[in-house]
Amino acid sequence: MVFGKDFQVNKKEIPLIDLAMQLNGELTAYDEHIVISGVAGLKEASSGDISFLGHRRYLKDLEETNASAVVLPNDVSFERLPSIRVENPYYAFSQLLHIFYDLPFKPGGIDKRAVIGKGFKHGRDITIYPHVHIEDNVSLGDNIIIYPFTFIGANSFIGDNTIIYPNVTIREKTKIGCRVIVHSGAVIGSDGFGFVKYKGVHNKIPQVGGVIIEDDVEIGANTTIDRATIGNTVIKRGTKIDNLVQIAHNVTIGEDCILAGQAGVAGSSQIGNSVTLAGQAGVTGHISIGDNVTVAGKAGVTRDIKDDQTISGMPAIPRMEWLKAMAIFEKLPELKQKLSEIERRIGEIERIDRHDA
Amino acid sequence: MVFGKDFQVNKKEIPLIDLAMQLNGELTAYDEHIVISGVAGLKEASSGDISFLGHRRYLKDLEETNASAVVLPNDVSFERLPSIRVENPYYAFSQLLHIFYDLPFKPGGIDKRAVIGKGFKHGRDITIYPHVHIEDNVSLGDNIIIYPFTFIGANSFIGDNTIIYPNVTIREKTKIGCRVIVHSGAVIGSDGFGFVKYKGVHNKIPQVGGVIIEDDVEIGANTTIDRATIGNTVIKRGTKIDNLVQIAHNVTIGEDCILAGQAGVAGSSQIGNSVTLAGQAGVTGHISIGDNVTVAGKAGVTRDIKDDQTISGMPAIPRMEWLKAMAIFEKLPELKQKLSEIERRIGEIERIDRHDA
Amino acid sequence: MVFGKDFQVNKKEIPLIDLAMQLNGELTAYDEHIVISGVAGLKEASSGDISFLGHRRYLKDLEETNASAVVLPNDVSFERLPSIRVENPYYAFSQLLHIFYDLPFKPGGIDKRAVIGKGFKHGRDITIYPHVHIEDNVSLGDNIIIYPFTFIGANSFIGDNTIIYPNVTIREKTKIGCRVIVHSGAVIGSDGFGFVKYKGVHNKIPQVGGVIIEDDVEIGANTTIDRATIGNTVIKRGTKIDNLVQIAHNVTIGEDCILAGQAGVAGSSQIGNSVTLAGQAGVTGHISIGDNVTVAGKAGVTRDIKDDQTISGMPAIPRMEWLKAMAIFEKLPELKQKLSEIERRIGEIERIDRHDA
Repeated sequence: MVFGKDFQVNKKEIPLIDLAMQLNGELTAYDEHIVISGVAGLKEASSGDISFLGHRRYLKDLEETNASAVVLPNDVSFERLPSIRVENPYYAFSQLLHIFYDLPFKPGGIDKRAVIGKGFKHGRDITIYPHVHIEDNVSLGDNIIIYPFTFIGANSFIGDNTIIYPNVTIREKTKIGCRVIVHSGAVIGSDGFGFVKYKGVHNKIPQVGGVIIEDDVEIGANTTIDRATIGNTVIKRGTKIDNLVQIAHNVTIGEDCILAGQAGVAGSSQIGNSVTLAGQAGVTGHISIGDNVTVAGKAGVTRDIKDDQTISGMPAIPRMEWLKAMAIFEKLPELKQKLSEIERRIGEIERIDRHDA
Repeated sequence: MVFGKDFQVNKKEIPLIDLAMQLNGELTAYDEHIVISGVAGLKEASSGDISFLGHRRYLKDLEETNASAVVLPNDVSFERLPSIRVENPYYAFSQLLHIFYDLPFKPGGIDKRAVIGKGFKHGRDITIYPHVHIEDNVSLGDNIIIYPFTFIGANSFIGDNTIIYPNVTIREKTKIGCRVIVHSGAVIGSDGFGFVKYKGVHNKIPQVGGVIIEDDVEIGANTTIDRATIGNTVIKRGTKIDNLVQIAHNVTIGEDCILAGQAGVAGSSQIGNSVTLAGQAGVTGHISIGDNVTVAGKAGVTRDIKDDQTISGMPAIPRMEWLKAMAIFEKLPELKQKLSEIERRIGEIERIDRHDA
Repeated sequence: MVFGKDFQVNKKEIPLIDLAMQLNGELTAYDEHIVISGVAGLKEASSGDISFLGHRRYLKDLEETNASAVVLPNDVSFERLPSIRVENPYYAFSQLLHIFYDLPFKPGGIDKRAVIGKGFKHGRDITIYPHVHIEDNVSLGDNIIIYPFTFIGANSFIGDNTIIYPNVTIREKTKIGCRVIVHSGAVIGSDGFGFVKYKGVHNKIPQVGGVIIEDDVEIGANTTIDRATIGNTVIKRGTKIDNLVQIAHNVTIGEDCILAGQAGVAGSSQIGNSVTLAGQAGVTGHISIGDNVTVAGKAGVTRDIKDDQTISGMPAIPRMEWLKAMAIFEKLPELKQKLSEIERRIGEIERIDRHDA
């Protein structure tokens, strides 16, 4: 089966001059009457599209683009096409996507096929789809959208402008802030993984704490965030979590962090602000990571890390040290060969010395 | 948005002397009339709480705690607060959480908005929430709770006192024992990943076997356990599996194992009893791991492992060997430097020797 | 609780001679009237079963099997049991499983408890279970089965003979081909993980692209495939993806690839045809992998890889080089010891030389 071009859901036409104003940029155009109807990458753009230069390595693509206009940083010289000059073209690109593709918000109300518990409170303009299940004493703010097959446990709270996509589970006593996005299949508030071995078997430690998700957090598809044993597991403001990430019980993740796909943080670890965990990175339990730390892909953090470090490897060490050690690792056979050669030479010298003696 | 203190769902008040009896401990108190209303960590506890000393490294926290009473091991000298002396304070802590926070079991019956297939059998006091889907010929034991958006395939069986949280998929012909807990988003009985390459393409091998989950197993959120090609994938009694763990087809996991978050076991591997796979560990297919083996975090097991080993690294080797090798790995640049120095010195000697000659 | 033997759902009895014809094989039998009622491994087979020799390492099991007949390659000498001789016994095994265990296809129609949006189009003989939610302008082909708790977003398309298991989320504008299998908990079309840091916070880049899943693809349980920022994330024909795999936005996976459990591919990377990613392998963003590349388990691919490579390690290097380096890694303490010994000897020589001088 061959798929055709994308179906354009909501086509808009906007004068370039209006876009320049919305982006707070300077228009350097041959023709101010040009009209834009879409956003595309430099290579993919065709007539009617606006594109952007995200990095200087794409200068060649800029030369060859079929876009009708481009967004450029102030210091790039380029005159073939009308351009909007801005401070941060990549940010402008994200603004353009909002401008062209955001759908109007139409609250859908509470579908009667949803199941709603006792003591339900909610603000204005909410959308509860069919096949949503909300337990007792749940409170929702304004402008919230909850998609089908989402379960919200008792005594939970969700702030304004939050979106919960389909098939999400939010267990009891979970607190979610404003402008949070929870992607499909995410599980928030599942029991922490806590057992005590007694008389030869693992006895479950009841997990009676909660989860707090602060404002402006995004939680990826099929990501899991366990509830605390006692107290709370906390994800602080502005942190973005990718798909299939595991956050164990009693973990705290600071503000404005980035946790990439398949990263994991074990129980009770504390992570500072503006920390990046790259893909498949892991953090062991009961440790602290400072602010502005970057953990490279697949790295395993096994001890406390101070602020402003970039670390790699398993166990994770400062990235520059790891790169130097790894460069030699790949050459270990040569190094071993050299060692054997030296041994041979030294044996030769010793033989001669003995002979001399 | 700022979240306040946790909402206390079900507050109890219990005399300390009663707790001592329930924990089978010895009360050493100045005031036997003290009443306890909650459980907290040493640092977090306030008046009315009971806390516990889980490890001697928290002795300082014990000195400073605001708890009204503490659970201690027999051999710690401490008289500032009333204490209950027990063999295993951590186990007592888990008992206290049960005592204070377990909710009374109230069977909810079978909601009429659930979809139930033909030939459905069940024991006493079950709870089937709305939006549960049960296929034909399913049998359930007593005291089972099945939360919304859970699918149970045909000819499946679930034992007494088992809890299935929301959004779980249990495919056909799955057998689940008693006192099992399945967390949200888990998938049990999905097709094993089996293909045979023939005429250049991957042909699906039908996966017609099943899955057996024995008694007292816990399965984490979004964990996947595939059905066998033929025969069964088996998780034995008392094994606890964390979130986002992958168990492939025809795997057997022994009794009382611990599989931490994001661990994975490839097809047909056999794992013994009381084995621990730490976070993000992986086990390749078609191998055997003995009893009492501990696989460290991020380790990759690529060959058979005998009983009573602790292994690390990729490929996994005995942990002590790995630690020694890794200590040198981090110093490889120094080692290489030393080798170059030796080469220089030996060259010098050879030059002199030749000169002498 | 002790579980008994598997419940045999649909027992068939088929003459061996008919099976030989269906497998396009040559029957070498003492008794052509033998009837087969099941398929089993060599060790597990009992009277009435047919088994097969998948690899010569199981020749001993062949000698001891209790099967009533076996499928063998042409060049194995074995006369104790009736056998069907074929080119590829493993492929024949998969055919036998289809023959004995495939259920007849009975279209169930559209259950009235499903929620179906406007502009819904569909072919012949579809099955939509209760508790399915389909948004507006969705098109389905013929013979499609959609299990409960599956959400299909607006303007999506699904081709003929595709199966969607329970609890799947397919977001808007997703295109899925023919004969595709999507396992439970998979999420297709969740937002790509794209942010631009501006004024100190991570601003979401709207993800307005789509996902294209071509014909004959299989997608594992709880696997996540993100939609593109603009353009499409593409999984090409015949590629099989295991459980808990992460495919980020704007990735292209070629034809006939195998992605094993918990593998991950970061944003915008391009993977060729017939590539294998073994379990827990990772591919960083914005790189290219050629055709016929095999990435070993837990390997981390950090740069472009040409065709026909087998790579291991983190960072991934050619497998033979990695094996050689790793063999020395495990012996680093010996190597360091040897180096110290050489240093001692060279010091001795220098001392003597100086003494002589």
